[in-house]
Amino acid sequence: MPAVVAAGLTKFGKRKEGVLELAAEASLDIVSKFAHEIDLVIVSNSYSGEFNGTSGLNNLVTTYLSMDNVPSFRVDNTSGSGGTAIAVANFMVRRFKRILIIGVEKMSERNTRQVTKVISSLLPEGERAASLPSLAALMAKLYMKKYEASRESIAQVAVKNHFNGALNPFAHIQKRVSLEEVLSSPVIAEPLRLYEYTPISDGAASLLIVDDQEAESFTDKPVYIKGVGMSSDTSYVTERQELTAIPSVREATAIAKREAKVDRVDFAELHDMATILEIVQSEEIGFFKRGEGWRGVMEGITELGGEKPINPSGGLNSKGHPIGASGVAQVVEAFLQIRGEAGQRQVKGARTGLTLSMAGFGNCSTVLILGDEP
Amino acid sequence: MPAVVAAGLTKFGKRKEGVLELAAEASLDIVSKFAHEIDLVIVSNSYSGEFNGTSGLNNLVTTYLSMDNVPSFRVDNTSGSGGTAIAVANFMVRRFKRILIIGVEKMSERNTRQVTKVISSLLPEGERAASLPSLAALMAKLYMKKYEASRESIAQVAVKNHFNGALNPFAHIQKRVSLEEVLSSPVIAEPLRLYEYTPISDGAASLLIVDDQEAESFTDKPVYIKGVGMSSDTSYVTERQELTAIPSVREATAIAKREAKVDRVDFAELHDMATILEIVQSEEIGFFKRGEGWRGVMEGITELGGEKPINPSGGLNSKGHPIGASGVAQVVEAFLQIRGEAGQRQVKGARTGLTLSMAGFGNCSTVLILGDEP
Repeated sequence: MPAVVAAGLTKFGKRKEGVLELAAEASLDIVSKFAHEIDLVIVSNSYSGEFNGTSGLNNLVTTYLSMDNVPSFRVDNTSGSGGTAIAVANFMVRRFKRILIIGVEKMSERNTRQVTKVISSLLPEGERAASLPSLAALMAKLYMKKYEASRESIAQVAVKNHFNGALNPFAHIQKRVSLEEVLSSPVIAEPLRLYEYTPISDGAASLLIVDDQEAESFTDKPVYIKGVGMSSDTSYVTERQELTAIPSVREATAIAKREAKVDRVDFAELHDMATILEIVQSEEIGFFKRGEGWRGVMEGITELGGEKPINPSGGLNSKGHPIGASGVAQVVEAFLQIRGEAGQRQVKGARTGLTLSMAGFGNCSTVLILGDEP
Repeated sequence: MPAVVAAGLTKFGKRKEGVLELAAEASLDIVSKFAHEIDLVIVSNSYSGEFNGTSGLNNLVTTYLSMDNVPSFRVDNTSGSGGTAIAVANFMVRRFKRILIIGVEKMSERNTRQVTKVISSLLPEGERAASLPSLAALMAKLYMKKYEASRESIAQVAVKNHFNGALNPFAHIQKRVSLEEVLSSPVIAEPLRLYEYTPISDGAASLLIVDDQEAESFTDKPVYIKGVGMSSDTSYVTERQELTAIPSVREATAIAKREAKVDRVDFAELHDMATILEIVQSEEIGFFKRGEGWRGVMEGITELGGEKPINPSGGLNSKGHPIGASGVAQVVEAFLQIRGEAGQRQVKGARTGLTLSMAGFGNCSTVLILGDEP
């Protein structure tokens, strides 16, 4: 069973550095210690061409890091690239014993309208008039109606995640917001508002993944990848049976849990591109029954000190969502939490965690279960 | 040891179909027979964003193929994407038992100047004034000088590959050219001329790769992936020790041969983006001593009926080079050759073959050794 033995992160946000510099910043600690032991570099990135006018990013990164002799490639699965890259590394580690994963995206070279247009290019042509933010708004409306969920419960996700993000020195938005502030922020897509969506962020995250047999030679606290689940759904969001569910998340969770032989986890990092997504996902990963996730938020169950903490890092909502970096950063957070190194946002007694990295609107979901034992 | 059990190809060339239609055309036979048995789809593609304004290509492809429930991702390694995607599949097949690889690129939506600019974006910023065609021209000049190679020997590669391509119904340019025609075609980058470079092509290629234990339940003639080698070099081409060598090709070949326990192969599909590259690569894969590849061409050794046939398919030079599809199409050719199904361009007695898929100018090389036995 592969293990994560080192991790690195840049601060997320509007950064002046370019895509190569960000990749290097997140990797510098790992590379300075272990460069000569790394057999493969996997770069998780979606849009270096569209955002940065750069292709062949993986080879440019290894050159930039003076690791010219290490083979590399890029894995792309849009918003879910990070989780997918880790899954790929997980299955390649038997051959390439030490794999460096670098997730990176430099988004702020384009303006919001351009970024939204580029990301909408992942939708099928017939649905491009929509956008991911508007699909999330539709999900919120349908969810509230179907389950009689309060509007406040959805906004409360942003309150919680900004609270956590304020404790995370790497988060994009390190500022608490009140329920009133969330509900009075500008409408992005009715009914959802500004603070309920992830901002546009630059950033990078890195992991060193090795075969478990040598994990303890790298660190005395390896974090093991106990289970990996990947599942897929149609790209036509409007053709799904119900928009208040994301079946690929449920299926990927089941696969990962089965492999991990784990039934419950101590915390989860979910893909909260919009607040409503965290609620629906919290049901799909089994933290709550269908239609009850919103109550869990209202009752504080998903807070840092709650019974089932979600997004202790601040989530995409407050930490930010540099596309290719996000899924990798989730596992950086799990690595810190499980090692007891998450500082003020430490989940007490965290020994197992779940991360969900999601392409598009659940077109492809990757769930990882991590823990302190093989 | 994984095996290729089915293959598909579109005609390469200027095609009216879009990127999804091409991917589907190459995969249709495989999908219609085996759709319900496929566990994972890997799409090899580099530039769907830049060329087609499309992202999340892998999820759009699975939806287009009515395989919504099959997880997928995109592997990119620029010109070497295909070989890399197959290497990734090779190492993931233990978990995902049947993997469909689809290599695809739709280039003709942009004009030649735009395509060249996009591809040059894989060079480090300091070298973007150059382009891959001009680097090849520099290599040709240095090679001729260092080894006293004749100009004709280099052009003869184009004569040979167009001869082979004329026998390949899927090739872009199905037309023989004489040495005189090659040497009087327009200069692209002194001294190399039009017929010595790969054209800009659209196209797609597909492979079904399965675990060897069940290979024979799919076909009575599986083609086994006996060895895989990946190796890397600096992105700064002008900083390499000598420009008449491509060390990553030599290293990747050594790794693949060691794993395959094979010393010689019956034919090779090389990455002849320009004629000179085939000559240098033919030395790096061990067909000739350094500095003697050009003599091999002049003596006909690399022709279809020669002792060491290279690019029986016509190579990139005549078959075309849809970036993400090329490396996959090489293995389609190896599959046909080893099964004795290559028609008029059949290499007699072909039981083992080598394919070389190369990113950039040898920034990353993937060598595969294929054969009719595990």
